[in-house]
Amino acid sequence: MKSILVMNGPNLNMLGQREPGLYGHSTLADVEQLCRDTGELLGVVVECFQSNHEGELIEALHKAGRAVKEGKMIGVVFNAGAYTHTSIALYDAIKAAEVPVIELHISNVHARESFRHHSYLSPVAEGVIVGFGIEGYALAINGLVTKMGSK
Amino acid sequence: MKSILVMNGPNLNMLGQREPGLYGHSTLADVEQLCRDTGELLGVVVECFQSNHEGELIEALHKAGRAVKEGKMIGVVFNAGAYTHTSIALYDAIKAAEVPVIELHISNVHARESFRHHSYLSPVAEGVIVGFGIEGYALAINGLVTKMGSK
Amino acid sequence: MKSILVMNGPNLNMLGQREPGLYGHSTLADVEQLCRDTGELLGVVVECFQSNHEGELIEALHKAGRAVKEGKMIGVVFNAGAYTHTSIALYDAIKAAEVPVIELHISNVHARESFRHHSYLSPVAEGVIVGFGIEGYALAINGLVTKMGSK
Amino acid sequence: MKSILVMNGPNLNMLGQREPGLYGHSTLADVEQLCRDTGELLGVVVECFQSNHEGELIEALHKAGRAVKEGKMIGVVFNAGAYTHTSIALYDAIKAAEVPVIELHISNVHARESFRHHSYLSPVAEGVIVGFGIEGYALAINGLVTKMGSK
Amino acid sequence: MKSILVMNGPNLNMLGQREPGLYGHSTLADVEQLCRDTGELLGVVVECFQSNHEGELIEALHKAGRAVKEGKMIGVVFNAGAYTHTSIALYDAIKAAEVPVIELHISNVHARESFRHHSYLSPVAEGVIVGFGIEGYALAINGLVTKMGSK
Amino acid sequence: MKSILVMNGPNLNMLGQREPGLYGHSTLADVEQLCRDTGELLGVVVECFQSNHEGELIEALHKAGRAVKEGKMIGVVFNAGAYTHTSIALYDAIKAAEVPVIELHISNVHARESFRHHSYLSPVAEGVIVGFGIEGYALAINGLVTKMGSK
Amino acid sequence: MKSILVMNGPNLNMLGQREPGLYGHSTLADVEQLCRDTGELLGVVVECFQSNHEGELIEALHKAGRAVKEGKMIGVVFNAGAYTHTSIALYDAIKAAEVPVIELHISNVHARESFRHHSYLSPVAEGVIVGFGIEGYALAINGLVTKMGSK
Amino acid sequence: MKSILVMNGPNLNMLGQREPGLYGHSTLADVEQLCRDTGELLGVVVECFQSNHEGELIEALHKAGRAVKEGKMIGVVFNAGAYTHTSIALYDAIKAAEVPVIELHISNVHARESFRHHSYLSPVAEGVIVGFGIEGYALAINGLVTKMGSK
Amino acid sequence: MKSILVMNGPNLNMLGQREPGLYGHSTLADVEQLCRDTGELLGVVVECFQSNHEGELIEALHKAGRAVKEGKMIGVVFNAGAYTHTSIALYDAIKAAEVPVIELHISNVHARESFRHHSYLSPVAEGVIVGFGIEGYALAINGLVTKMGSK
Amino acid sequence: MKSILVMNGPNLNMLGQREPGLYGHSTLADVEQLCRDTGELLGVVVECFQSNHEGELIEALHKAGRAVKEGKMIGVVFNAGAYTHTSIALYDAIKAAEVPVIELHISNVHARESFRHHSYLSPVAEGVIVGFGIEGYALAINGLVTKMGSK
Amino acid sequence: MKSILVMNGPNLNMLGQREPGLYGHSTLADVEQLCRDTGELLGVVVECFQSNHEGELIEALHKAGRAVKEGKMIGVVFNAGAYTHTSIALYDAIKAAEVPVIELHISNVHARESFRHHSYLSPVAEGVIVGFGIEGYALAINGLVTKMGSK
Amino acid sequence: MKSILVMNGPNLNMLGQREPGLYGHSTLADVEQLCRDTGELLGVVVECFQSNHEGELIEALHKAGRAVKEGKMIGVVFNAGAYTHTSIALYDAIKAAEVPVIELHISNVHARESFRHHSYLSPVAEGVIVGFGIEGYALAINGLVTKMGSK
Repeated sequence: MKSILVMNGPNLNMLGQREPGLYGHSTLADVEQLCRDTGELLGVVVECFQSNHEGELIEALHKAGRAVKEGKMIGVVFNAGAYTHTSIALYDAIKAAEVPVIELHISNVHARESFRHHSYLSPVAEGVIVGFGIEGYALAINGLVTKMGSK
Repeated sequence: MKSILVMNGPNLNMLGQREPGLYGHSTLADVEQLCRDTGELLGVVVECFQSNHEGELIEALHKAGRAVKEGKMIGVVFNAGAYTHTSIALYDAIKAAEVPVIELHISNVHARESFRHHSYLSPVAEGVIVGFGIEGYALAINGLVTKMGSK
Repeated sequence: MKSILVMNGPNLNMLGQREPGLYGHSTLADVEQLCRDTGELLGVVVECFQSNHEGELIEALHKAGRAVKEGKMIGVVFNAGAYTHTSIALYDAIKAAEVPVIELHISNVHARESFRHHSYLSPVAEGVIVGFGIEGYALAINGLVTKMGSK
Repeated sequence: MKSILVMNGPNLNMLGQREPGLYGHSTLADVEQLCRDTGELLGVVVECFQSNHEGELIEALHKAGRAVKEGKMIGVVFNAGAYTHTSIALYDAIKAAEVPVIELHISNVHARESFRHHSYLSPVAEGVIVGFGIEGYALAINGLVTKMGSK
Repeated sequence: MKSILVMNGPNLNMLGQREPGLYGHSTLADVEQLCRDTGELLGVVVECFQSNHEGELIEALHKAGRAVKEGKMIGVVFNAGAYTHTSIALYDAIKAAEVPVIELHISNVHARESFRHHSYLSPVAEGVIVGFGIEGYALAINGLVTKMGSK
Repeated sequence: MKSILVMNGPNLNMLGQREPGLYGHSTLADVEQLCRDTGELLGVVVECFQSNHEGELIEALHKAGRAVKEGKMIGVVFNAGAYTHTSIALYDAIKAAEVPVIELHISNVHARESFRHHSYLSPVAEGVIVGFGIEGYALAINGLVTKMGSK
Repeated sequence: MKSILVMNGPNLNMLGQREPGLYGHSTLADVEQLCRDTGELLGVVVECFQSNHEGELIEALHKAGRAVKEGKMIGVVFNAGAYTHTSIALYDAIKAAEVPVIELHISNVHARESFRHHSYLSPVAEGVIVGFGIEGYALAINGLVTKMGSK
Repeated sequence: MKSILVMNGPNLNMLGQREPGLYGHSTLADVEQLCRDTGELLGVVVECFQSNHEGELIEALHKAGRAVKEGKMIGVVFNAGAYTHTSIALYDAIKAAEVPVIELHISNVHARESFRHHSYLSPVAEGVIVGFGIEGYALAINGLVTKMGSK
Repeated sequence: MKSILVMNGPNLNMLGQREPGLYGHSTLADVEQLCRDTGELLGVVVECFQSNHEGELIEALHKAGRAVKEGKMIGVVFNAGAYTHTSIALYDAIKAAEVPVIELHISNVHARESFRHHSYLSPVAEGVIVGFGIEGYALAINGLVTKMGSK
Repeated sequence: MKSILVMNGPNLNMLGQREPGLYGHSTLADVEQLCRDTGELLGVVVECFQSNHEGELIEALHKAGRAVKEGKMIGVVFNAGAYTHTSIALYDAIKAAEVPVIELHISNVHARESFRHHSYLSPVAEGVIVGFGIEGYALAINGLVTKMGSK
Repeated sequence: MKSILVMNGPNLNMLGQREPGLYGHSTLADVEQLCRDTGELLGVVVECFQSNHEGELIEALHKAGRAVKEGKMIGVVFNAGAYTHTSIALYDAIKAAEVPVIELHISNVHARESFRHHSYLSPVAEGVIVGFGIEGYALAINGLVTKMGSK
Repeated sequence: MKSILVMNGPNLNMLGQREPGLYGHSTLADVEQLCRDTGELLGVVVECFQSNHEGELIEALHKAGRAVKEGKMIGVVFNAGAYTHTSIALYDAIKAAEVPVIELHISNVHARESFRHHSYLSPVAEGVIVGFGIEGYALAINGLVTKMGSK
């Protein structure tokens, strides 16, 4: 059985407490359970990782790339939080690791501050899902499985 | 049984012929059948509409808004094509009609010309799905049903 | 007796339903009645036209221009809605038709989104009236009659 | 009987001499008489004030705000001339004084130099009237009375 | 005998009346006759189409693309008027229809308003002809025949 | 005993009435009393000046510069209000007068309109204090005394 | 007794060695002692933390937010160094942790390179103190205690 | 004998004290004496006026315009200081008064801060003289006499 | 018999060798022969000149202007190569010499690097021809003869 | 007796013929005679040089710099024409040669096309004289002599 | 024997696998061996460090600065990868540590995405070497030794 | 034995005299000797060429390109001076001539005026070397030999 990595970036450990009007009341643990449940339905193992450190996220992408090359992993669902808008290093990491990535945002970033309208990751993502709340993770896992399955 | 409107904008009648490396070989008829099949699984009726005329798309949104208010429709999955990037009138129509809209793009617009990176519709969309090919329509219908069901 | 054309653009058929906090509760029918009443007081016939289609608005300006040249019409009060901010074709139509136009906005566009701060029509309008609610139509008809009368 | 303040900013004491092709041949005295006559028809007293000093215009707005709060004044018709485009202090004064203001320009500022296309005052104005020549003052007084009467 | 479509966009039905200092005194009928005459000399049938509706121009391009694929048409001489500067949908239509297009402007757009200096169509045009008055249509037909003949 | 000048610019005479949600309910008299009290604790005389006239503020800086050179004054705490964002003349006045200035804003200007994010005065200020409400004046007086004392 | 966290970001461990003409000769240890002394005078415990790692600063804010919610901490005095100008993740962390933050800069950032003129943190700070040298820390602690005490 | 007005704007009363490395050690009195002496040589009366108030400078231009129309004055040598870069009202005043103006700057504004590189006055000046120190006043008086004499 | 000057700018001596995918395999000699042949058909003498030196191109335009004034030359077909995008001096030369110029580009500059999208020459050209390969020279000669003949 | 070099750049050999409404009817020979006459009055030899070649102007500046160092030349009056706005190489040449330069423009460049508003030469010029017609050369020679004499 | 630090930033641990068309097939180990070999020839010890963590790179610079001050190290050859374009903190670290740095990029960053054209590090680097592939490291070590040796 | 061309652009004939703080005291002759010596060590003949004329530099590149094609030359080390930042014609010449070019700057252009931060040549250079003083020429020759040798 292949795996999927669900990776959350800075401040997403604060889910449930952080601006609940925007992000909802579910915690990161709830999100990760939802992801594992979704994976189970689709016959994939969902692994979860959260970090506030850009360097750790880079390295997790490198590792995921190796797992994809070894045929053990399908790809990554990645909510990079604020690093989405500032990190060229993560853009490079996705290209360097040759790992299929679905970019995800819980809130509708296009309806928020203008500095959230640009994403360094979108041009190298397989797909982008924005604004569906935590249900977006289930859509993203579905979309990743479908898209990578059809390649 | 409630309905969903899947609405396609300019040049999407050319699907299958139009830049197949970018948009794939499925035709608009294929997309619409996929949408109806997805709807059936979810217990919703999927209606389909395509137009190359901005004015007709505006009016279809007005009509959809009335159906939503009457409790007959859940919302719209809308691939506005090039009007995404130029039409404030469609932005206004979504707000005026108070109709829930999922914005969808078949290709990864963020990996293409810079004038495709800005969307007038995203700030008033319930969610945005980009880059999943025609399978994105199925994700969008799923996402619309889930998001509107949870409100 | 000369006439005036009151022309409304995209989404203005939704008046009364559309963001009433911004646009008020009067319908397009109410606006048109107010315009006809104002005209009666001033001894002019007020004709009304609304369209969501840029092409139809262009052609209505062409027709109005001919009526002006024949001495049957004074000019046009034009609320172009969102096309105000995107349509060079309407700017060209006003110049091509040589028709006197009063540009009108119900809400204060300058207190709203930045993309509403620029108007393609203002440079070729005889006058601009912004932010007076539907009473602005009465002011615009008055202003058009006065300005064109004094030429 | 309530009053209205018609306030003119820098260089408007030069009306009649200043670029008559643009501003016409009426003097400031003519404008002020037109305003008083218009007020008489509407049952309001029109007071007039002109200054080339930004600080005096600020203070006149403060004083007008107090008159409005005391129920003695309806609001201000304000042609701020060049300060329209450069004075954040006048924008602040309107907000600080909570005085209803109709912004007015005799010429069509949108058909002139690009630095006249932006107004600091429009976002805090009740309404804006542009390009009607000195007849615009009569429209503005009418519009102020109507809009404030309907609140 | 193959055909060429000469397509004119918004406001070009006003030729002859519209700013004659800029566009000359020939009418659209004159232009179309000139085109047919030019075609006759070159052994091609010239068809003519004018519309003020963006949607109709899109669809005419789709239809022309089919004619080209069937070997019945050489390509399109297209004066898109103001849509040149605002329509990504027409850019998409040219690419989707894979139709050879010569972009044409009667006046020298580069000597006019700055918003006329950018064309969405030029990057997907086979050639661009600007500023030759209505004689430009004859040059364009010649150029299209030569260029497509040499491919 | 040396003195400090606390200088307030345009619209700050409206404190207490002006947008109290933003500026609080204290009046300018309250602020000036707070400043004098703070001065007393620190053994400096606090003088207060408010003007809505850019020219008067310029001249007060010139005078303060002379007092500083004569060893009678420590420097100026300056809330320049809206002139902060528009007045190069005040920037020049600070440099010409060689007077130490602490720039102060009651509200958090960085959380407000974008035109308040730039200050012409900051580059020539000894220090900047933003967002502490009227207590900021006490901090500024403290900071001025400490910084100038340590030079 | 409540606490305050004084947090210093990248390169501030180099204080005393780093560009002393700009930052002075005091070391980070000196600054932290000054802060503790200031706290003692005001009856608050001052904790100190320095890190060159964005991720660690994010996590320290999360932890501080929890301490504030538990009533143990008043807030944070934060000199984020260069991350001030590049880190949306720290902006998000302040909002997510709901922790009162005073932003502080030792040097006058507005008199330096243009990339130091914009701060991502200012819009979510309770107050900003710039240019007072290391004495700014004492002002910031005072300001934080006063502002949070008055809420 | 005709006159010339030498007019100095904000902070020029500080000449001699203000940044002498940039502006030199001559005082405003020295400059004005130099101007009167230059005038004497050329057979014109030189009047001098300095103000820090934008409004007073506007009114002095209006008055000068009247003197020019009455044949008593040749024109104005105007060093508008910082208002050069911010005042559209002075630009308007020059046009409204129809007064010939030579714009002058003592220092080389193009070698200083970027906000000094743009002048609102240059487009309506008869000539511009920059960077010659106080000797520039003599050049400007010469230039004004020569240019106006040759018209 | 009148003449036409066909003038080629920098790097066009490399035609045939230079990026043949973009510019084709014809050499400059081929182009010049094509031009002479086209001229012969139209009854005009075609002179040819190529230079990599901006100064020489300026002087050739001056000389051409004199020939036009003497009635010996019709005008210039000018492919200015890279100087198109950088040379205000050539723009000035065209205006100073009052010589009719057809601007020509072999490749479609609008489909290439963004710095090729702006032309300093277009606003002063009689017509512009882009993207027709070397056949564009024949169209340009035709267009120049027709346009200048009809004046 | 020391010398001054009066150097004219591209298209200035066309003086008298070139846009006489803007540049007047005097020829370059007239200008050079005026300069020599002015020099005679001031006791300096005026040498004249005109070139349309950027490289020749660079080299003339190098040579002038050597003459200045040898005490034979005072400096250069330089009308660089269009190269003013595009040539960093001339800016570098002035700095490399350490030659005092007065920048001169016959017409008021600030009242013309926006690309004439920026000068690469102004920041390294001793002074700038704009808009005085050919009389500006006399002012410039005077200014150069005075300024260099006082150093 | 003095040392040199060769420091590689984010994603450079992926060398050899990462976009080999751009970066070549050599691994980081190969690069580091090449550097050590180059050092041996020049009589310097080459130390190597790679990190994906901005904070660790900052701290390595601090440490290198200390080694330089102690006379043990010559300087740093630094390929900062994507942090080149986003990290003001690394710019600050170089200045704070007063460490001589040669900036290096394997690929030609100027021929890639526009966000790679700006480097925060270049202004504080002793030299920059771009586009030589991994051989650039040898050039950089040579250059560092030569430049620091000559100081 | 193959050759290398070392080509220097405008103002580099002034080396040694020109801003020695920035460019050092070596003359162009010194640089050229250094280059020949470096070549000798590497077994290549170094030819040297300097010109202040853009056109001559273009033609030298064309000639070098022919030598490369004939196998007689390796490539060019090119310090284009100020033309680096303004010359698209040199960019085109490098592409047209298909000549390998190492771009070189003696000073650190990134630490100087902002108009020196952009290079038109970098995207078509094989490598770029900046800031090493005249030793950079030796590095560049080395780099060119190594890089071209490995192809």
